[in-house]
Amino acid sequence: MLTVKAFTATSATDPLAPATIERRDVGAHDVLIAIRYAGICHSDIHTVREEWGEITFPQVVGHEIVGEVAEVGSGVTEFAVGDRVGVGCMVNSCRECDACKAGLEQYCAAGNTGTYASVDHDGTITQGGYSTHIVVDKDFVLRVPESIPYEAAAPLLCAGITTYSPLAHWNAGPGKRVAVVGMGGLGHMAVKIAAAMGADVTVLSQTLSKQDDGLAFGAKHYYATSDPKTLKDLRNSFDLVINTVSAPLDFDGFVRLLALDGVWVNVGAPAEPISMRVFSLFNNRRSFAGSNIGGIAETQEMLDFCAEHDIAPEVEVIGADAINDAYERVLASDVRYRFVIDTATL
Amino acid sequence: MLTVKAFTATSATDPLAPATIERRDVGAHDVLIAIRYAGICHSDIHTVREEWGEITFPQVVGHEIVGEVAEVGSGVTEFAVGDRVGVGCMVNSCRECDACKAGLEQYCAAGNTGTYASVDHDGTITQGGYSTHIVVDKDFVLRVPESIPYEAAAPLLCAGITTYSPLAHWNAGPGKRVAVVGMGGLGHMAVKIAAAMGADVTVLSQTLSKQDDGLAFGAKHYYATSDPKTLKDLRNSFDLVINTVSAPLDFDGFVRLLALDGVWVNVGAPAEPISMRVFSLFNNRRSFAGSNIGGIAETQEMLDFCAEHDIAPEVEVIGADAINDAYERVLASDVRYRFVIDTATL
Repeated sequence: MLTVKAFTATSATDPLAPATIERRDVGAHDVLIAIRYAGICHSDIHTVREEWGEITFPQVVGHEIVGEVAEVGSGVTEFAVGDRVGVGCMVNSCRECDACKAGLEQYCAAGNTGTYASVDHDGTITQGGYSTHIVVDKDFVLRVPESIPYEAAAPLLCAGITTYSPLAHWNAGPGKRVAVVGMGGLGHMAVKIAAAMGADVTVLSQTLSKQDDGLAFGAKHYYATSDPKTLKDLRNSFDLVINTVSAPLDFDGFVRLLALDGVWVNVGAPAEPISMRVFSLFNNRRSFAGSNIGGIAETQEMLDFCAEHDIAPEVEVIGADAINDAYERVLASDVRYRFVIDTATL
Repeated sequence: MLTVKAFTATSATDPLAPATIERRDVGAHDVLIAIRYAGICHSDIHTVREEWGEITFPQVVGHEIVGEVAEVGSGVTEFAVGDRVGVGCMVNSCRECDACKAGLEQYCAAGNTGTYASVDHDGTITQGGYSTHIVVDKDFVLRVPESIPYEAAAPLLCAGITTYSPLAHWNAGPGKRVAVVGMGGLGHMAVKIAAAMGADVTVLSQTLSKQDDGLAFGAKHYYATSDPKTLKDLRNSFDLVINTVSAPLDFDGFVRLLALDGVWVNVGAPAEPISMRVFSLFNNRRSFAGSNIGGIAETQEMLDFCAEHDIAPEVEVIGADAINDAYERVLASDVRYRFVIDTATL
């Protein structure tokens, strides 16, 4: 066992605090990663505050992890000490079901093993990336291209793949009108990726406060949804909408933005049930879909795509002492666009 | 103007009653149809009872119409007097938008003109098929194949196309696991059509009371949804679900029946908003879609498909004097499987 530094939640209400945790010994198929940076995802907050269900404390969260390989197991030939690597939202899956065989480990029939707050194959609870080191099965380790700085690479492992996967699956590209709802950590990446794919990108944000950024990131159009004219004027306008907002929306008004055979994809995860009239979907044969991160091969594809197109998240690097404040700022949408923890400060 | 017999709703609460109505003169592009039979669709009841919104009374409903051509306009070469023809849920559309050009008049950007309770291009309110005659633009008239009896053809114009269209669009066929929720007018046609397409068909009905019928119609499996085991045992089992039920369902439980990339299609139209957790869609990248009847070309394709595969609705032919009772029986699910009005009794 390795004893390593981490920043831990001890209850659903107390602030996160420094602690040490144990990592398993490096097995034959494992990679020990010296973590450089870990992104702060809204999911981290939902989880430690038990808004998505009860968890076991103490719990280390964080699933946007980048660093260097510090050690590899005897059966690992794919990685070597010093390699730039990353870990996203999953650290294992059954590898035998149809989904796993199709490279869609995120939809593993047995349930994938989340990077934190999941029961690992050895029965322990997985502990995430707000830590100096992590031990991960080699099949769930990604290569971080040289051209992407470590701190910018971190949010790609969740915010990047969560938006890339539905954009790729539903064929965002030239001629496709794509709207991105919300301009936070996920939203700003959705804009950059969809624009790099060649789509005609529109941002739908509550206000116009981030309009200059949105246009700089590649959006062609930017509308404030606080203006009631927006939902009316843009009816039947989009082939694909990526909704990154977790808060409840006027879904009836929003899905009517979809054109013929348009697809609404929620990657935001509201804790409460949504309400919608089926009538809102009848016209234009609209679909309302969910999408959950992406598979391992697709995550590598996304990292390579971002390197090739020279796109990366906008980040604000913070020290460990700022994590609790950062949580409040995430909840207040006061971040442009992703907090990333420098793990040297743990 | 032609004065013709009809069965009319005079208010949202009074029973329907005999009356006469006016039909427009046969224009150059019109077809006058001597109606033989008109099916009773649940939509007729929702409409006259104003459950879907206010309407103008008196109103004749009915959009499952079959009969013989009695007269054609000077510009009509496609039909001749005596031809077996039908009319479904639409009698016009803009013909210029992308949807119309794609043969998807049901999704006309300007809104299609419904067979009843719609504002027609001449400003009058369209009047439906519980009547002896109707005048319809030739482009919205379908040919009824010789091998399908008139009374059985009627429900194909709504119940048939409403289920055929999503089954065809989402590729029901060999190797596809299709579930049909509800065994009413639409449901029993969905079973017959999906089975004829070669899909592996499962019926999910509240009880097993229609199990023998379902299996005879081509379903391989039949489950009662009143048994709580059903939703649990069948999780992740279907590629496509056609939900014909208008009543609210436990959508969280039901959509979890979808396998990887599975699509839920609602053709039932609940008046109230539905409630669902977005989390229920995340796993398996599930979609929840709406589908609205089908285009004119596709409706003809469906009629020809049914003739080719020797499938037709099960009908109970009634006289005009039984229409009001039939409405109550539809609401009580006491019909196997579609009431069809013999218009000779009007």
